[in-house]
Amino acid sequence: MPHSDLPLEELRRYRPRLPAPDDLQDFWSATLAEAGQRPLDASWTPVDSGLVTVETSDVSFAGFGGSEVRAWLHLPARALRGDRQLPGVVQYQGYNGGRGLPHEHVFWASAGFAQLVVDTRGQGSGWTVGDTGDPVGAAAAQPGFLTRGVQDRQDYYYRRVYTDATRAFELLRDHPDVDGDRVAVAGISQGGGIALAVAALARGVAAVLPDVPFLCDFPRATRVAAGDPYGEIVRYLKAHRDRVDQVFRTLSYFDGAVLARAASAPALFSVALMDEICPPSTVFAAYNAYAGPKEIAVYPYNDHEGGQAHQQREQLGWLRGVLDAPAGRPTPRGLGD
Amino acid sequence: MPHSDLPLEELRRYRPRLPAPDDLQDFWSATLAEAGQRPLDASWTPVDSGLVTVETSDVSFAGFGGSEVRAWLHLPARALRGDRQLPGVVQYQGYNGGRGLPHEHVFWASAGFAQLVVDTRGQGSGWTVGDTGDPVGAAAAQPGFLTRGVQDRQDYYYRRVYTDATRAFELLRDHPDVDGDRVAVAGISQGGGIALAVAALARGVAAVLPDVPFLCDFPRATRVAAGDPYGEIVRYLKAHRDRVDQVFRTLSYFDGAVLARAASAPALFSVALMDEICPPSTVFAAYNAYAGPKEIAVYPYNDHEGGQAHQQREQLGWLRGVLDAPAGRPTPRGLGD
Amino acid sequence: MPHSDLPLEELRRYRPRLPAPDDLQDFWSATLAEAGQRPLDASWTPVDSGLVTVETSDVSFAGFGGSEVRAWLHLPARALRGDRQLPGVVQYQGYNGGRGLPHEHVFWASAGFAQLVVDTRGQGSGWTVGDTGDPVGAAAAQPGFLTRGVQDRQDYYYRRVYTDATRAFELLRDHPDVDGDRVAVAGISQGGGIALAVAALARGVAAVLPDVPFLCDFPRATRVAAGDPYGEIVRYLKAHRDRVDQVFRTLSYFDGAVLARAASAPALFSVALMDEICPPSTVFAAYNAYAGPKEIAVYPYNDHEGGQAHQQREQLGWLRGVLDAPAGRPTPRGLGD
Amino acid sequence: MPHSDLPLEELRRYRPRLPAPDDLQDFWSATLAEAGQRPLDASWTPVDSGLVTVETSDVSFAGFGGSEVRAWLHLPARALRGDRQLPGVVQYQGYNGGRGLPHEHVFWASAGFAQLVVDTRGQGSGWTVGDTGDPVGAAAAQPGFLTRGVQDRQDYYYRRVYTDATRAFELLRDHPDVDGDRVAVAGISQGGGIALAVAALARGVAAVLPDVPFLCDFPRATRVAAGDPYGEIVRYLKAHRDRVDQVFRTLSYFDGAVLARAASAPALFSVALMDEICPPSTVFAAYNAYAGPKEIAVYPYNDHEGGQAHQQREQLGWLRGVLDAPAGRPTPRGLGD
Amino acid sequence: MPHSDLPLEELRRYRPRLPAPDDLQDFWSATLAEAGQRPLDASWTPVDSGLVTVETSDVSFAGFGGSEVRAWLHLPARALRGDRQLPGVVQYQGYNGGRGLPHEHVFWASAGFAQLVVDTRGQGSGWTVGDTGDPVGAAAAQPGFLTRGVQDRQDYYYRRVYTDATRAFELLRDHPDVDGDRVAVAGISQGGGIALAVAALARGVAAVLPDVPFLCDFPRATRVAAGDPYGEIVRYLKAHRDRVDQVFRTLSYFDGAVLARAASAPALFSVALMDEICPPSTVFAAYNAYAGPKEIAVYPYNDHEGGQAHQQREQLGWLRGVLDAPAGRPTPRGLGD
Amino acid sequence: MPHSDLPLEELRRYRPRLPAPDDLQDFWSATLAEAGQRPLDASWTPVDSGLVTVETSDVSFAGFGGSEVRAWLHLPARALRGDRQLPGVVQYQGYNGGRGLPHEHVFWASAGFAQLVVDTRGQGSGWTVGDTGDPVGAAAAQPGFLTRGVQDRQDYYYRRVYTDATRAFELLRDHPDVDGDRVAVAGISQGGGIALAVAALARGVAAVLPDVPFLCDFPRATRVAAGDPYGEIVRYLKAHRDRVDQVFRTLSYFDGAVLARAASAPALFSVALMDEICPPSTVFAAYNAYAGPKEIAVYPYNDHEGGQAHQQREQLGWLRGVLDAPAGRPTPRGLGD
Repeated sequence: MPHSDLPLEELRRYRPRLPAPDDLQDFWSATLAEAGQRPLDASWTPVDSGLVTVETSDVSFAGFGGSEVRAWLHLPARALRGDRQLPGVVQYQGYNGGRGLPHEHVFWASAGFAQLVVDTRGQGSGWTVGDTGDPVGAAAAQPGFLTRGVQDRQDYYYRRVYTDATRAFELLRDHPDVDGDRVAVAGISQGGGIALAVAALARGVAAVLPDVPFLCDFPRATRVAAGDPYGEIVRYLKAHRDRVDQVFRTLSYFDGAVLARAASAPALFSVALMDEICPPSTVFAAYNAYAGPKEIAVYPYNDHEGGQAHQQREQLGWLRGVLDAPAGRPTPRGLGD
Repeated sequence: MPHSDLPLEELRRYRPRLPAPDDLQDFWSATLAEAGQRPLDASWTPVDSGLVTVETSDVSFAGFGGSEVRAWLHLPARALRGDRQLPGVVQYQGYNGGRGLPHEHVFWASAGFAQLVVDTRGQGSGWTVGDTGDPVGAAAAQPGFLTRGVQDRQDYYYRRVYTDATRAFELLRDHPDVDGDRVAVAGISQGGGIALAVAALARGVAAVLPDVPFLCDFPRATRVAAGDPYGEIVRYLKAHRDRVDQVFRTLSYFDGAVLARAASAPALFSVALMDEICPPSTVFAAYNAYAGPKEIAVYPYNDHEGGQAHQQREQLGWLRGVLDAPAGRPTPRGLGD
Repeated sequence: MPHSDLPLEELRRYRPRLPAPDDLQDFWSATLAEAGQRPLDASWTPVDSGLVTVETSDVSFAGFGGSEVRAWLHLPARALRGDRQLPGVVQYQGYNGGRGLPHEHVFWASAGFAQLVVDTRGQGSGWTVGDTGDPVGAAAAQPGFLTRGVQDRQDYYYRRVYTDATRAFELLRDHPDVDGDRVAVAGISQGGGIALAVAALARGVAAVLPDVPFLCDFPRATRVAAGDPYGEIVRYLKAHRDRVDQVFRTLSYFDGAVLARAASAPALFSVALMDEICPPSTVFAAYNAYAGPKEIAVYPYNDHEGGQAHQQREQLGWLRGVLDAPAGRPTPRGLGD
Repeated sequence: MPHSDLPLEELRRYRPRLPAPDDLQDFWSATLAEAGQRPLDASWTPVDSGLVTVETSDVSFAGFGGSEVRAWLHLPARALRGDRQLPGVVQYQGYNGGRGLPHEHVFWASAGFAQLVVDTRGQGSGWTVGDTGDPVGAAAAQPGFLTRGVQDRQDYYYRRVYTDATRAFELLRDHPDVDGDRVAVAGISQGGGIALAVAALARGVAAVLPDVPFLCDFPRATRVAAGDPYGEIVRYLKAHRDRVDQVFRTLSYFDGAVLARAASAPALFSVALMDEICPPSTVFAAYNAYAGPKEIAVYPYNDHEGGQAHQQREQLGWLRGVLDAPAGRPTPRGLGD
Repeated sequence: MPHSDLPLEELRRYRPRLPAPDDLQDFWSATLAEAGQRPLDASWTPVDSGLVTVETSDVSFAGFGGSEVRAWLHLPARALRGDRQLPGVVQYQGYNGGRGLPHEHVFWASAGFAQLVVDTRGQGSGWTVGDTGDPVGAAAAQPGFLTRGVQDRQDYYYRRVYTDATRAFELLRDHPDVDGDRVAVAGISQGGGIALAVAALARGVAAVLPDVPFLCDFPRATRVAAGDPYGEIVRYLKAHRDRVDQVFRTLSYFDGAVLARAASAPALFSVALMDEICPPSTVFAAYNAYAGPKEIAVYPYNDHEGGQAHQQREQLGWLRGVLDAPAGRPTPRGLGD
Repeated sequence: MPHSDLPLEELRRYRPRLPAPDDLQDFWSATLAEAGQRPLDASWTPVDSGLVTVETSDVSFAGFGGSEVRAWLHLPARALRGDRQLPGVVQYQGYNGGRGLPHEHVFWASAGFAQLVVDTRGQGSGWTVGDTGDPVGAAAAQPGFLTRGVQDRQDYYYRRVYTDATRAFELLRDHPDVDGDRVAVAGISQGGGIALAVAALARGVAAVLPDVPFLCDFPRATRVAAGDPYGEIVRYLKAHRDRVDQVFRTLSYFDGAVLARAASAPALFSVALMDEICPPSTVFAAYNAYAGPKEIAVYPYNDHEGGQAHQQREQLGWLRGVLDAPAGRPTPRGLGD
């Protein structure tokens, strides 16, 4: 699996023409405003994860359209955290996964953060399990999630997902044990794409950690990615040969490389130069467009696994630095405000 | 791709233990009765397919839950058919396909039949296109259609599909240009599995043509099939390790090798001994269980493409023989009656 | 399978240096003249295809060297066509296929054309069957048809195939039920390459429909195509390392991107940008060289399946337009005249 | 990836003839006695893993031949564990991995155990990194670790690995913060094979947790496993066609299905029925031979990933039950005593 | 690539029902008698191979139908061989190869034998080159050589090949520098199948060396072989679904497992238990049917490469023993006599 | 497998920036000087290879660190060579192979040369067998040989291999039956890379024959090669994300494209433009840097098999020309002098 995308020096300059729809802001304002009319209706139920170092709650809240979204909230054990408010990390999931079992993802809590591990609606029967369905159906689509409702931006699957994710961020930000000014969003692959979207849409995101993000620069991704999940769009257009423009029009409302222009929180990206799932050019398309302070960790010999534990270590150091920085940082506004 | 399933002599005897649920009949009676409370609300709109030998209408009717299902009705040109009522064939689609473009599937009409080419809800962005969405969502599931709602028989995707298909049969059976006593159901792969289900569920099916049918003997299929779509269930259970029994319980209401016991119309099956998608044992499980008069065409050196044009030729001769047989055939009753 | 060939804007400009042999015209004139000395010896035997909308004859005629070539002639049923002369389409086959069963390929007849479905000598044991052998042997060659006799242009397999194809066109053009001024040639993949050759070689071709044509720009094809059939030449040269020039010398007499310069009939090409069998650059090499009026349908997300039913619909509209255009079109002359 | 090994009912009865070498006990007694003549020379250096819930030390000790082996020791944070002695788990690594980064594997510590994560000498440049070399060379061998020194049991690579592993167990068992009567050995794949060996070789193992263990029933494994690492042996014998008996003679000293007969601690195995790396028959060969109290978790739809987080949850419950069982359990003796 | 064929103990007993055609002897007698009416017309032209230890002639002779077949004759250098007559080995080629370059295959000559390296007509553009064409054409066939003319035993490609091979044996047997009573036939894969046929057809074969022979037990081969060349027959029957019996009828005249019953010379076979091209059961079908004295070398961990240099060493020792055995051996008669 | 590397015209100009370490000469001088302090301790034991045209000795000598290295020496039979001193060829082996069986590689001896076929330490359990172990261990490494000791140039595996190879050259150069001024070094793939290194390191190399050489231009090779063995480095760096610079620093001491600058003997390279193992750019990197008189044979349609017998024929003619050239050639000095 050799490097087949652009060389690194060209990646650093790669800025595709991706026109933002005129009504991008209106679309998201309206979407989030409508969602915001419903209360979060959050519930927190303590569960026994089997671990002694972390305390876990089963979380439920009302997402897009009011339907239930599930998550885990992990906090360091009371004996360790005392009564102070914790910084927080909202962690979104990679494609086809879910929040998993209660003990499965506790890195940030083990490092002293309040960690919210959020389901992606409809997903969670793949590499980790989830408990959140998507009650909304779709027009004829490819197997998979990427082409559900892609005919129309109002019906597109990720409209619901990004809205859920934004509300999950608000949930953690406003949690009594959490310092609402110090909440980051994070995720790998699809999780990274969602984090990027939340960075653009939500108000008050303190930092963003998108690792090998998915959902960026769809036009190029569908031409150069070797396989799924971008391949779902390719196969959809292979069948619906007459809908190319229509589909990319919809996707432009959800493209991380478009939304990144509206983000302002400090960001630490990562990219892998041998990534065949989320080719590095698509990641750099988002990174180069990102409007806030930013850094990127480059892994030259990795495929889509990216930096893994190495990147966790990087993130921990970087995030502590960012969140502990002297105050005065203005609260970033979101595209959805 | 060598023969990897059982030898032919064992296939001919293969009868797996597949317990029918106690409430199988109740489940389907209730399902179809509920659906039957809505009128079909059929509309027929002539379209120009570009062909001169066949006349085509764009068909819409109310399927499960009242949502719209689309189909094409093809009739031989008026100059050829005159005023007599035609025998009919309802044709269901293979996995991931749809009714296609108007001129795409006209074999049965070209051979003198009224041919109804029916969409499968939610599908139709693959090898042929469709125009029928599925407005019903699902709990967390694998990409694909096989595990949507598989937690509960009431929510399972194929409950809606089989109901739509049964209503499509009724639609053609009752069409004024059609001789309602001479309507067959047919399909390849998923289409064959659906045809088999309709043969068990509907009243008055005159003949059944299941080619290399899918959706049969799920327990074995998930152990021996090499890939998708059965692989969707495998991957679902790979994630949801604790739901094996629950999933097979649901599937037992939809298994062609269970439903076949309730069918009574004459049937011509086909099977391919090198079929890696729908392994021959799963097809014989249904064939051997089939309760009506039956024959099977065996293709020893074919994979899932099966008999293709050869089988069409077989079917044409066989079907003409069956439909022209002397009257006195009792109207077969369906499981759903 | 991402785009791995040139970007579309470069494809539109791609004009490889492919020198035409000095004696190209002489070679083909002599070849066709020699063939023309034998009568076509055509026979037409009605067969029952099982269809009622189309009438089919089993056709036999003397091809290259006088050996028998088989075809089907399909006409719309007499009740539909009356006594008027029909426009015609000669349809050549994709690699490894044959004319198929009588009912298998009737699209053009169903649309009102006289349709001649011609075998490719020696082929027809693959995706569809054929009934035409090739009585001529060959020097040591790779398995497959592309390197048979490739040492010498006189012995090359496609010399016989193109000659057969040209005579098939003449056969339909001169058929009493056909309007000889309105006969098109068509084909997909190898069939498209053959159609292109006939457009250059025959006199009086009214229109050309090459879909994702094969047999174009051999030098590039052998460097960029991912697999067979072009791979047969690659493997031949992998063994016969000392015959590279000799082989490409032979192929230059048969290269669609060379022959296209001699064609003059209106043409509607199609190309798929993810085509790994006939890479888009090889198709554009022929299209850009094509000397007659031309259009090309571009399918950005398709592999070698190309436009399929969508392209049929395009072709039907386009061909009706071209054939019904006001007279005064001069009869195009062929390279072989 | 269908089930290709024996059906479950046959797996439960599968007991291959695997003769134990006459001098098996002598071989291991001598090996461990020789190793035991060197002190462990353990060092414990606190490191900052970035986590706040777990305290980590970088461990070094003298393994086989006195060469340095590295490990991490993780303890729950002091505030959580207080002064009491903890139960322990020694965790061995899968093929090609190492102990990883300090924060990478802390499940057992997070659950309240002293967790020793041990390197495998020479490995640790694959899915996780390691810091332990193997200073011993080898005769000509296949790339990989499985055929290093396989000509002679004295030189075989796993003689050194099993000895290192046994000494790692002793290290944790004798650690002042650990209750030496409640130390289990655990591992996945190669780690499971090593744990099984330690269960047979060491004295005082309280429980064993082999997940989808590797290194079991080499004769069958080399016939039925689809790929690496067992494939290394296949390729070695493909070249060294004259050494089949010699190689299996060596391997019989290291085969988990032979050594299991000498183990006596309670064991919880796991097996995946679609495991193509460590086929289920090879796991059952060890399980069925295992001489102590035993249970096995069967994952019918999993490949070599096995039970993952589900199995962790199972193990946690089971292990707490076993270790908290009323005293009176005799200290198990090892084959190496 | 695990063992997927029968276990060795069953292989040793495997005797498929392969009925010999009633007219098998007549067919071959007539074929060879007709060929025998033409003189061999041999020519021997010394060539410079570049080697100093072996002297090489370019050989041409009249094969089936009188068409030219090429070979190399290698003799040890005159200084080494003196004037005595040498034992001989005729070596046939694997599928898709030819006699190669003059210096390419000199093992037997280097070991003191007269070695005739014979082309296979039409082949020789693959792993080694050849110079022999096949002037005979064929009915529609799959790419490849196995289905050329397979409709009729008179037209089948291997009728010509086996006849060429028998005449090549006669050529070497009657060469003045060769001791005609001590000429063996040998070959790997297809070469082994041809050698087996010659052992059955020719008179006076002194020994046979079939390595991993191809062309044996076609019915099983087409069911269990994983790929080409047997796959050519599979694909042919996949298309020509109606010719299964006809094809196997033809093949029964050419099946090494049928012809072996007519052979009488001592034979040393070899077989590889992981052979996916020529599965071991097909080799044992021939071996178990072989009517002369016989031995077989079994390579348990090899794929189709078989024993390679190890087997050459075996063959050299065995052949010297057989050819130097005390006289009194009757001259074996061939099926073709 | 299309051409995926640079076009030929760019390959001919390709000169990557590969800085030579400042102490390159010192490193190799010291390494070889230290090795030179030990005598070669050569032993020559005649063996019976089974061949009569070539006489073979089993050779043993002291390589790096004094450990034993094995080789075969083949001479044309005494009756052919008389008493004159022969020109010589030292042949190094491809990755994972060894010297093989005694009769296996005798091309150069058959052509009148003294041929020394040398093992590569630790290798020889792959495509041919070897008898030379590597008694030196390594830090944690990937399976395979390329990353053993790659942390430090002193410990790197190829430091030992190149030293062994240099000493093997000296052994043949100084053999009493050999004309020491006419000894060439040769090899394919890894063997070619080793030959190139010896050409740079040893004194008195008369000619160099590197075919499709491996071990050249590591930075590019790890980015563009499709698989192993270069993939071993890729996977190592995929795990050890923090060692990229360190690893390439080590490799710069062993890179054929760096060492080639120090070579002066006439060289005949070969390269294959479809080589996916040793991509052509990496070969041209070495060729373009090569400091002596040079030619290169280009095989446009070959993968890593390269020119095979065709190239042998080329080499034989070229080498005879070079070695028989009029004297006056200065003895080339090596980098290691």
